[in-house]
Amino acid sequence: MANIESRELLSAEEFTKRLREVGEEGYHDKHPFHLLMHEGKLTKPQLQAWVANRFYYQALIPKKDATILSKSDDTAFRRAWIHRIVDHDGARAGQGGIHKWLVLAEATGLQREEVESFRLVLPAVRFAVDGYLFFVQTHSLLESVASSLTELFAPTLHATRLPAFEQHYPWVDTKGLEYFRARLIEAPRDVEFGLQYVLEHCTTRELQEKAIVALTTKCHILWSLLDALYFAYISPGWPPPLWQR
Amino acid sequence: MANIESRELLSAEEFTKRLREVGEEGYHDKHPFHLLMHEGKLTKPQLQAWVANRFYYQALIPKKDATILSKSDDTAFRRAWIHRIVDHDGARAGQGGIHKWLVLAEATGLQREEVESFRLVLPAVRFAVDGYLFFVQTHSLLESVASSLTELFAPTLHATRLPAFEQHYPWVDTKGLEYFRARLIEAPRDVEFGLQYVLEHCTTRELQEKAIVALTTKCHILWSLLDALYFAYISPGWPPPLWQR
Repeated sequence: MANIESRELLSAEEFTKRLREVGEEGYHDKHPFHLLMHEGKLTKPQLQAWVANRFYYQALIPKKDATILSKSDDTAFRRAWIHRIVDHDGARAGQGGIHKWLVLAEATGLQREEVESFRLVLPAVRFAVDGYLFFVQTHSLLESVASSLTELFAPTLHATRLPAFEQHYPWVDTKGLEYFRARLIEAPRDVEFGLQYVLEHCTTRELQEKAIVALTTKCHILWSLLDALYFAYISPGWPPPLWQR
Repeated sequence: MANIESRELLSAEEFTKRLREVGEEGYHDKHPFHLLMHEGKLTKPQLQAWVANRFYYQALIPKKDATILSKSDDTAFRRAWIHRIVDHDGARAGQGGIHKWLVLAEATGLQREEVESFRLVLPAVRFAVDGYLFFVQTHSLLESVASSLTELFAPTLHATRLPAFEQHYPWVDTKGLEYFRARLIEAPRDVEFGLQYVLEHCTTRELQEKAIVALTTKCHILWSLLDALYFAYISPGWPPPLWQR
C-alpha cells in the first residue's frame, strides 16, 4: 500500500473484483463447519446448535439495519434500505425472516421459546454478532453498507443449502427451509442496491480500501461464529463454563 | 429462581461467596490454554501469540474505565476509580501497565510496533474484548463495576505466573515480568474498592443476580479470548482467512 500506484482509484470492475475476492477467500461457506453441514455430516444436536446460535445473528439484523438507517440523511436511501427491516421483522406476526428462522428451528426439533431466549447461544457467538452492531455503530454509513455486501456471496450458499438439507437431513420438515428460499430472492435484490451504493460513494482509493476492510470484518464475524460452534461442538468440543445456567 | 426463597436478599457473606464461585468455575486460569502456559508447554510462537493478543485487552482497559468513570455522578467514586486509568496509561511515557505489557512483548522477542498495530490480534479476540467495552457502554454503573471483579481472582493467577515464567520460559527477560509484579499490588487494592461498592449498592436480590451475571459475562470474555488462541494456535490450529494482511 506504500507505492503510488496502489493509491490510484480502482475502476468499478477492479474494485468489484477485489470485493468478490474477499468472499472467495473469506466467506463462511468455506468454513469446515459449513462443509460438514452441507456434506450431511452434522449430528442432530450439532445442526440444532447451528440453528439456535445463528438465530442470535438473525435477531440482530433489524437492529443493525436500523442503525444504518439512522446514519443516512438521504430520504431515497432510507426508503430503499427500510425494507430490509420489514423483510426480517415481517409486516405482521407470522411473517418475516426472524419468524421463518424460528420455523426452521422448530423443524429441527428445537423449542421456539428456548431459541428466542438465546439460552443456547455461545458467549463467543454473542461477542462476534454483537461486534457487527458495534461495527455499524462506530463506522461510517459507507463502511456499514460495505459490510452488508456478504450478500454478494449468500445466494450461492443458499442454493446449495436447500438440496443439501433435503438430501442429508430429511428429518427437517421442508417447511423449515422457507427462510433459505426467501433469501434466494431477497439477497440478490438487496445486494444490487448495496453494491451500487458502494461503487458510487467510494470516490477515493482510501474509501475503496475501507470498504474492503469493512467487508473483510464482516466475513470475520461470520467465520468466528462458526469457529465458536466448531470449538464447542466438533473439536476439541469444549463449551465454556458457567454457560446455559 | 422461581421460588420465593431465591428472591430474598443474600447476606454480604452469601453474596460474596456466590461471586467467588463464579471465579472458581469460570475464571480463565482454568482454561486449557492457561494450563499449558503455566506448565511450560507453550512454544515460543504460541506464547508470543498470547502476549500479542492479550495486548488488545490491555490497550482497551483505559477506554473501559473511562466509560465507567463517565457513568458516575459521584465525585468520590470517580476520584477512587480514575487511578485505574493512570495505572494503565502511566503518569508519563515509559510508565503504566500498557507500557509494561509492551516491555513483556519485547522480552518475548516481539517487535513493539507489530504489537501496537494489533496486526497479530485474532478477529475473535477483538470481538470478545470489544464486547467488554460494549458491555460497560450498555449496562449500568453497578453492573460495570461488578464486571471488574475478576480482579478477585487475578492475584492468585499472577502469583503462580511469575515462578512459572521464570522456570519454564527462561528466555523471557525477567524485566518483562514487571507487569505481573505490579498487578500483584494493584489488583487487590482495586478489587477491595470494587467489591465494597458492589456489596453496598446491590440492595435487592435482583441487583445481586445482575452483578453475578455481569461477572459471569466478564469471565466469558476472558475465556473466549483463550478459546480463540487455542483454536488458532493449538487445536485444530486454524487461524481465520483474510487475516494479517
